[in-house]
Formats: sequence, structure tokens, C-alpha cells
Amino acid sequence: MELSEDELVAAIRAVVSSDSPGVIVGVGDDAAVVEPRAGSTVLTTDLLIEGVHFERGLISPRDLGAKAISVNVSDIAAMGASPRYALASLALPSEIDAAWVIELYGGIRRACDEYALSLVGGDLSRADRVLISVMVLGEVAHGRAVTREGARVGDAVVVTGALGAAAAGLALSAASAPVLSAALSAGWARELLDALARPVARVGEGTTLAQCGVTAMMDLSDGLAKDLSRLCLASGVGARVRLADLPITDAVREAAAVLELDPLTLATSGGEDYELLATIAPAEVEPARERLRERFGVTLTQIGDILEGGGLVAVDADGIESPLEPRGWDHFAG
Amino acid sequence: MELSEDELVAAIRAVVSSDSPGVIVGVGDDAAVVEPRAGSTVLTTDLLIEGVHFERGLISPRDLGAKAISVNVSDIAAMGASPRYALASLALPSEIDAAWVIELYGGIRRACDEYALSLVGGDLSRADRVLISVMVLGEVAHGRAVTREGARVGDAVVVTGALGAAAAGLALSAASAPVLSAALSAGWARELLDALARPVARVGEGTTLAQCGVTAMMDLSDGLAKDLSRLCLASGVGARVRLADLPITDAVREAAAVLELDPLTLATSGGEDYELLATIAPAEVEPARERLRERFGVTLTQIGDILEGGGLVAVDADGIESPLEPRGWDHFAG
Repeated sequence: MELSEDELVAAIRAVVSSDSPGVIVGVGDDAAVVEPRAGSTVLTTDLLIEGVHFERGLISPRDLGAKAISVNVSDIAAMGASPRYALASLALPSEIDAAWVIELYGGIRRACDEYALSLVGGDLSRADRVLISVMVLGEVAHGRAVTREGARVGDAVVVTGALGAAAAGLALSAASAPVLSAALSAGWARELLDALARPVARVGEGTTLAQCGVTAMMDLSDGLAKDLSRLCLASGVGARVRLADLPITDAVREAAAVLELDPLTLATSGGEDYELLATIAPAEVEPARERLRERFGVTLTQIGDILEGGGLVAVDADGIESPLEPRGWDHFAG
Repeated sequence: MELSEDELVAAIRAVVSSDSPGVIVGVGDDAAVVEPRAGSTVLTTDLLIEGVHFERGLISPRDLGAKAISVNVSDIAAMGASPRYALASLALPSEIDAAWVIELYGGIRRACDEYALSLVGGDLSRADRVLISVMVLGEVAHGRAVTREGARVGDAVVVTGALGAAAAGLALSAASAPVLSAALSAGWARELLDALARPVARVGEGTTLAQCGVTAMMDLSDGLAKDLSRLCLASGVGARVRLADLPITDAVREAAAVLELDPLTLATSGGEDYELLATIAPAEVEPARERLRERFGVTLTQIGDILEGGGLVAVDADGIESPLEPRGWDHFAG
């Protein structure tokens, strides 16, 4: 690192600074000062750690910076809220050069611009591995935040977009060079690698679904089976998932075939989809689907229903039911 | 780690949960939802990384958890604001046992209770070393946040409490066992080790100094020389520090004598004081000092003045001036 901490802060400030409405004091003081608008304040934070959440050789610093913002914004979107301000802390090994760090902040800046949020602070430290800790503050009208607790028996279970793409991208990035090279020239690999490196938070979709009356909502970060089981636990209900209805793209099916994986496993246990999972009265599914399609060109798929009791049941294409185990990402699993 | 991530989250939730006014959605959903009161929102974040900011063998998990909160609250205090909500993220090596983690959250809880703030969220991950990332949200009346930018030529430079105790504690903790043991039995070592392990954020003092009309304020985390030079840079001024006036306790002088260190170096370049550094019109020093003494039993010491130009000048006991180099903590210094 050829810059001192203060010099690095100054360089970062040049990359991220902007005159944003609502920002009274931005990066560089003891703390940032912002003006809240009317409504409730929504707060979330996520860590991204090298060797756990990403490999430095497999993602560009620009994509990594943008992803650190997107995964946090996704949590704000899942409450039906809008992101406004971010803090981004960074720990860096001494061998990292300043250009890499500036690129990373370029990615943070790009994502902040995309989501119309302002980076107002953070912290810097040395560490053995790269670590990014982001906090995002959002806003939502009083009483309108959508939690995981409101699912009712009989509600439809819906998801935005498609499932398993990031998991397929992760599996693909670990494949042998000839397999990866063939997949890239066949054309379907790029969208899977992009799903992993460049997730997009469903902000507009989240506020739209909240307006459409979803009863519970969360974002899919740890895999459908695990996340839906969390939603059900929070709501005190169970759920039935129709496997044949899971939205799975052709690219995921291609990757599954080439890598000898089950596309259903990618779709139910793969993490990092950053799609929205919600429950909604059956009569409201069609209007909500129509609205998402019109406004964002994004699909909304009913994948099951909420049941009494607890636990998840999967129904296969032949109508056979079996328990859907909440497998998925666990940082502390043996 | 004998618990899964969800089990650990549940255990943590039991330690930290409380019915706090203003918290609509606390730990456990995609994001927390809180109700802002009138005023501006103040945001800050700080990382604590094992091997950089602390050694796991030298601080109890309870003190570590409390310190992670205190160092963030100190930044809120330095704006003249009051802390309200915290997010705390934790990355843990696999060999850490759950009891250590629960103790750490016990310390976080204790500190949150002391400062009357609510822990409303966070994140958990695996890592090679323990890492704690805390964000604190505070509130301050509109237009009343005190930045680093308002120091005026002729202002007095003041600090709360005394300087160098944490730096002396750090030096002492690295001393040989016989030296440490002798220091502990002599009675003055405990307050230095406590200053390092159990810093207290000056929240009431910060809001009181804001009411007393300080023109600029910051907390001392990286050493007086470095932090004062930052304040001067932000305000476009210089400063003269009278070394004979620096508040240094007998314990720091004892430690300096035993460890063959210069007490002035501990006081000007030692980090982690978490005292408040402020500038104020000379006529307001005495009323401010009186108020801090009455309300909190805390001293306020004038240590110098703000000058035109830039840079720091130190005046020794004989009236001889020399440049005061902004030495202090730099994460990226070679």
C-alpha cells in the first residue's frame, strides 16, 4: 500500500463524493449527518469476506464493490423500503495496491448511483484478507414495512425472476478450464457468472409488491428452502412448494447438465439469488404479476402455498410429496 | 462451533432482545425498522479486527463487545449527538466456542444499556480471525451537529479527561510478566489497563460541550497530534499546543517511568483515548469547564490555541516552540 490512511481516505472521498440531497455531513468527519424524510428508518448490514463470500481472483474489484452495496440494498428492498444512505468499511491486506482499492470504491459508487443512495461514511483497516462491511439505511412509510411474519394460511408463495443462476455460476467458476471455456463459447455461461458477480437488488419490485399487498417478504440469499423455512418459522406456518413450477432458466438447466448437477437442487439450495420471496392472497397474484411485468419486465411466479403447521413440503411433477429440507448456506455448518 | 448459524442467531437474540421504544422490527428480519424522532440522523461505523485492534488473549469477550459499542458511540458523542440504535456484525473463526460469542454479546448488551441504545441487527460470518463491525445511529437537533470544520483563529483548544492512559496500558500489556506484576501490585496499572479495555464514550459531555458553544469537536482515537492536525486541516487553521498543560495522570507518568517512555509521547501520539477534543471561544472555556465538572465530575483542560495558517506547533515548558508532527496510528503506514 503506497498511500497513508489519510491519503487513501482523500482518494476515496474524491471517488465517492457527491452533493446529495439530505446529506449534511458526508465522508470525513467523526460521523455522517443526514436529514430523514417522513417515515420509518430501515437498517441493514452485511459482511463480505474474502475466502468465505468471494475469491479475489474470481471477481473484479469493481464488481465486488457494487455487489457489497447490492446485497445490502436487497435486504432494504425485501422490507418494501427504499435505500437512501450507505456506510462502507474496508479491511485490506498490505499487499493490495491503491488502484485495486480505488476500483472497488468505483464499484461502490456505481451501485450507489444505480440505487440512488449516498455513501456517507465508513472505516478503513488493515487485515489478512479483504473484508467489506456495508450498512444501508432506507426509508419506508410508517407502518408499511413488510416483515417475514405476516404469511397467512392459504396465501400463495411467489418469487421474482428465476432461481439457481448464481449457484450455477459458482459451480461453473469452479469447473475445469476446458468446461468453462466450452460453456462460455456456447453462450449460456455469461449470464450465470454475471448472476454471481453482478446481482441486482429488486428495489422497485419490492416497493411494488408491498403496494400489491404481499403479507410477508424477504430476499433470497441463502437458498429457497432455507429462506422459505425462515419465513414460515417467523409467520408460524408451513408451506408446500411445487417443484415443477420453480422458475429455472435454460442457462441453469444447461449448466446443470454439463456439471452433472440437479437443477432443482440449484434452485432450492443455491444461495445468492437476491430475488424476492413473498406471500400474497391468491386473488392478488395475477394483478401483482401484471404490475411487475409492466413496470420492470420482471416475472413473478407462484411456486406454492402456505399451509397450517410448520415445515416445508415439496411436490414433484408426479404429485408425490416429500419433505423439503432447509438446506442451504450456513456459515457455521460443520 | 457447536451451534448452527440460525441457532446462534436465536441465542444472540435472547441476549440482546429488549422492548425498546422506537424499535418496530428488531433483530431477525431482513432489516430493522425504527422510528426516528425529530432531528437529524447521525451515522458512524468502526471495525475492530483481531491482531490489529485487539489480541483475543488480552481482552475478555465481554470487554471486547462493550468496547466495540463504546468506540462507535464516541464518534456519535463527538458530533454532540445522542446514540439510539446499533447494528453489530461478527466474523468468527471456527474454533471459537459459543460461550465466548454469547459473552461478547453480553458485553455488547451491557454497553447498549449503559448508553441507552438498542441493538437492532447485524450479520454473522466465518473468518480466520475475530472481526467486529459496528454501526451506530444517533440523533441530534437540526443544525446542531458539531463537525471538525468550525475552529476559528483565536479559539481555545480543549480536551476532556486525561491523555495517554490507553497507550500506557497497551505498552504495559506488552511488558514482561515481572514488570506487569509489579505494576499491578503498585496499584496504578489497573486504571491504565482499564482505559485500554474499557473505554467510556463521553456522550453527556459531548452534548454539554455542544450546548456550551464549541466551534469544532472530534473524539481522540488516533492520538492528539494526528487528530488535532485533522481538525485543523478540516477547519483550515493551525494550532499551538502547550505541552506543560496536557492533562496526564500520575498513573501514566508512573508507567512511562517504569517502561522508559516519554509521557508526552504517550499523551500526544498514543491512540484510543476516546476523550473529546474541541475548540471554543476563550471566554466560554471556564463556563464549559464548570458545567462538565458539575454534571459529570469530568475535567476540561485548555491545552492550546487555534492559529492562522496550518500545522501544529508544540510549546515546551521553557517556551521553546517546535513542530508537533502528526504521528499516531496509521493502518497503512509501512
